[in-house]
Amino acid sequence: MYLTQALHRAVALTPGKTATISGARRTTWQEFRDRVARLAGALKSLGVERGDRIAILSMNSDRYLETCFAAWWADAVIVPMNTRWSVAEHVYSIEDAGASLLLVDDTFAETGLAVRDACPQIRHTIHMGDGAAPIGTKSYEELIASARTVEDARRGGEELAGIFYTGGTTGFPKGVMLSHQALWTSALSIGAGTEGFNPEMRYLHAAPMFHLADFAMSNATSLFGGSHVFMPGFEPVSFLKLMEEHKASYTLLVPTMIRLLLDCPAFDKHDLSSWKGMLYGASPMAEAMLREALTKLPHVAFTQGYGQTELAPIATLLGPEHHVLDGAHPHRLRSAGQSGLCVEVRILDADGKELPRGEVGEVAVRGPNTMLGYWNKPEQTAATLVDGWVMTGDGGYMDEDGFLYIVDRIKDMIVSGGENVFSAEVENAIMQLDGVAECAVIGVPDPKWGERVHAVVVPKAGVSLNAEDVAPHCRALIAGYKCPRSVDIRMEPLPKSAAGKILKTELRRPYWENQARNVS
Amino acid sequence: MYLTQALHRAVALTPGKTATISGARRTTWQEFRDRVARLAGALKSLGVERGDRIAILSMNSDRYLETCFAAWWADAVIVPMNTRWSVAEHVYSIEDAGASLLLVDDTFAETGLAVRDACPQIRHTIHMGDGAAPIGTKSYEELIASARTVEDARRGGEELAGIFYTGGTTGFPKGVMLSHQALWTSALSIGAGTEGFNPEMRYLHAAPMFHLADFAMSNATSLFGGSHVFMPGFEPVSFLKLMEEHKASYTLLVPTMIRLLLDCPAFDKHDLSSWKGMLYGASPMAEAMLREALTKLPHVAFTQGYGQTELAPIATLLGPEHHVLDGAHPHRLRSAGQSGLCVEVRILDADGKELPRGEVGEVAVRGPNTMLGYWNKPEQTAATLVDGWVMTGDGGYMDEDGFLYIVDRIKDMIVSGGENVFSAEVENAIMQLDGVAECAVIGVPDPKWGERVHAVVVPKAGVSLNAEDVAPHCRALIAGYKCPRSVDIRMEPLPKSAAGKILKTELRRPYWENQARNVS
Repeated sequence: MYLTQALHRAVALTPGKTATISGARRTTWQEFRDRVARLAGALKSLGVERGDRIAILSMNSDRYLETCFAAWWADAVIVPMNTRWSVAEHVYSIEDAGASLLLVDDTFAETGLAVRDACPQIRHTIHMGDGAAPIGTKSYEELIASARTVEDARRGGEELAGIFYTGGTTGFPKGVMLSHQALWTSALSIGAGTEGFNPEMRYLHAAPMFHLADFAMSNATSLFGGSHVFMPGFEPVSFLKLMEEHKASYTLLVPTMIRLLLDCPAFDKHDLSSWKGMLYGASPMAEAMLREALTKLPHVAFTQGYGQTELAPIATLLGPEHHVLDGAHPHRLRSAGQSGLCVEVRILDADGKELPRGEVGEVAVRGPNTMLGYWNKPEQTAATLVDGWVMTGDGGYMDEDGFLYIVDRIKDMIVSGGENVFSAEVENAIMQLDGVAECAVIGVPDPKWGERVHAVVVPKAGVSLNAEDVAPHCRALIAGYKCPRSVDIRMEPLPKSAAGKILKTELRRPYWENQARNVS
Repeated sequence: MYLTQALHRAVALTPGKTATISGARRTTWQEFRDRVARLAGALKSLGVERGDRIAILSMNSDRYLETCFAAWWADAVIVPMNTRWSVAEHVYSIEDAGASLLLVDDTFAETGLAVRDACPQIRHTIHMGDGAAPIGTKSYEELIASARTVEDARRGGEELAGIFYTGGTTGFPKGVMLSHQALWTSALSIGAGTEGFNPEMRYLHAAPMFHLADFAMSNATSLFGGSHVFMPGFEPVSFLKLMEEHKASYTLLVPTMIRLLLDCPAFDKHDLSSWKGMLYGASPMAEAMLREALTKLPHVAFTQGYGQTELAPIATLLGPEHHVLDGAHPHRLRSAGQSGLCVEVRILDADGKELPRGEVGEVAVRGPNTMLGYWNKPEQTAATLVDGWVMTGDGGYMDEDGFLYIVDRIKDMIVSGGENVFSAEVENAIMQLDGVAECAVIGVPDPKWGERVHAVVVPKAGVSLNAEDVAPHCRALIAGYKCPRSVDIRMEPLPKSAAGKILKTELRRPYWENQARNVS
């Protein structure tokens, strides 16, 4: 199985159907495949050989998709770059991956030149934007116009298709190696397990394409012969306009985007009747917000996806049938769902033994979608890929019906006096105290307990909270050893990532400076 | 990817849900997996090692499915035997495959002993029927009861999962080698491209399980976590009763079975409201009959499948949306449909070049579902597997929308009642009858069988031959379904080309005039 197979099939079935809509540009599948075959020819004429790494630093566009397919067509490997990174991080990952080609769009033209100058191994820089190609770079469209088509390499299976960088627990990004098989089975599994994947679908790329969440949906869209609609980056007003204008039917959003959308004054002013389904995930979503979204988008079938880059990325899916506000199993709204079609999920104890249902342990996942390993990191690979299982580093439990509930990142787990405390459990308790806007529970060093459960609590505007009230409130809800032994009341919002994830590392830092944190 | 993964997932999600219903027996997924793990242990204790071939000669049952999974669990390879074959054909294929274990049910208890006695390499014969195990055989249930469970080998991907014998153009059956990947992607592709595959489905095994048509559907059912209902062999009254009693929702039928069903007096007397969908194929179906079936089963979603064993077996699917009596594209009812999700289809000329749309050539198919090759037949493999493409031997064309139309079989083959009959095999048998000068075997239209095996026989000068003697003579040599159902004794020589090749087209013409040979 090879990812370009989707192109051949789409051209065979519906050559004249829309493949991509990107701003004012449109291509049919026939045009799209021809451009891919010529771009692959151009890459080869620039010296690209089997297995060469091609880095892409760009906002979402049709050319992003073309570049991925052209790289595979030319038997090369893609390295999609995180658009939020600093130049130093780009340089680190390009050097680590040994990429020899770099493609950048208008947004990253300047950054691209800086990165190129810092990375002597980059042989060519291709400008894939609309503006003029900066001096020293090649024009994407000129390359396509002048290139000859080449034959598709049709290499696939266990061959490396892409290196996807993900934040590292050790402070350095790790390159997750995904094969054609991993990306292909993940895409087919998503499409088969989710309603709304068919040749009539129109998928709106709202989340960044470098991220596996959108990337897997993109592959599924191509595999099922649907059409792609691109927006450079998420922004609620443009999203609503594009959804209406192009009658998009499916999209993937992360909770932060859903929040922005629901709060957007223009939300009610667009015809969103074409919108049939949505996959959401990549970070936790509060149940109250999910209920609000379900109420405001009653005609959209919600599916939650849980996974990670190492799984290309799907581990579990919670389908539309479980997204019901007042059903027989209301707790399932807090679940991450059941294992994807091609996936096995297990909960393991510290010795790697499977735990009984209901007990919390580390989530382990196995399937044809698992990574080949971390690029150039055999030790970290060995620690994560154990007997074919990916150790996710997430703590969770499974109920009798195979629904997975994620409790916490294990690395965030606090070991206090020999007892395991999962932060999420404590945070859930604190959030039930009147007047709390947000909170974070972390482990801080303690001479007696090793680690102490510490809470940082932000009150709602105009509310006054006493630190002394937090622990007694929790004690009524959870075991004593889980209750915070110290509490900070903080008047400013908690630090968050661009994706809306609370940055616990920043909260922990002042406590752990000059201290070794013995992470189990 | 490995086929037993479906078991692990089903047990994780729905351990207490029905896995199998076979006569009075039922198992849950938990029970089924436990039996499989014990049967695998028994196989290992009988000396089964990695890659050993295990032959199964049995009517449909839960134990058939258990045996397949247990073989994979024990890292072995299955060899499902055609239940219509003669002892001589069984012996040939068991010797060819080098099978060391043979499992037989009550129906084939006697045949099994005869085969075993003729094949010294069979180390053990296991009786998987309900009656007492004949002397010299082991009892299936006793083996399971006394065995220890073993760990699943979890081997898959390109590893050999089964050898499936199919009629040979040279007169001898060929063993088609299918990998875990081929069977797995085919199953996922069927399930993803066909409505009705979900954990709530109940699949009724009506067609024989040794045949790839039912086999692929069976794997898809397991993969999606549905339930299996078995009938030993197709018979319309039992089919209707089982469908009603067990509220089956999906089945696979060949046209001959559909004919028997529509003509069955009990057809209107059963509640068939649970029946949601059907895949049909494996032999030509007249359009009039298809229209009749659609009219009489308006609540059933029809999908046509076209393919062959070498493709595990799907090449194209014609979905329910094209099974409309008076739609905009009525001709699509005569089409074999569009390429499956994981498949590419091309029409090639004699030089292997792709032909323009609308032109007739040989149908070639490529995908992760293609066979590894023919067992022990490198030359025939090389002739059929060309650059990763399976040359189907079928002639057809594709329209502008990617719909495939089969017009003829380039390989000299007859499909009668869902079984492939290679003319060469029948001709070889007839030529062994004293007094035969030459003969030709062709397929002619038949209301019951779709195509009927018809022989044209020319006696030697001065010899008098009886048409009635031909079939009984053949029956001693080849399976009953391969024997001619009608015979013409012809006194003049057969029409031949300048090169001396018999012109079968001319022999066929009078029978097929005014008949669309809708081969699918």
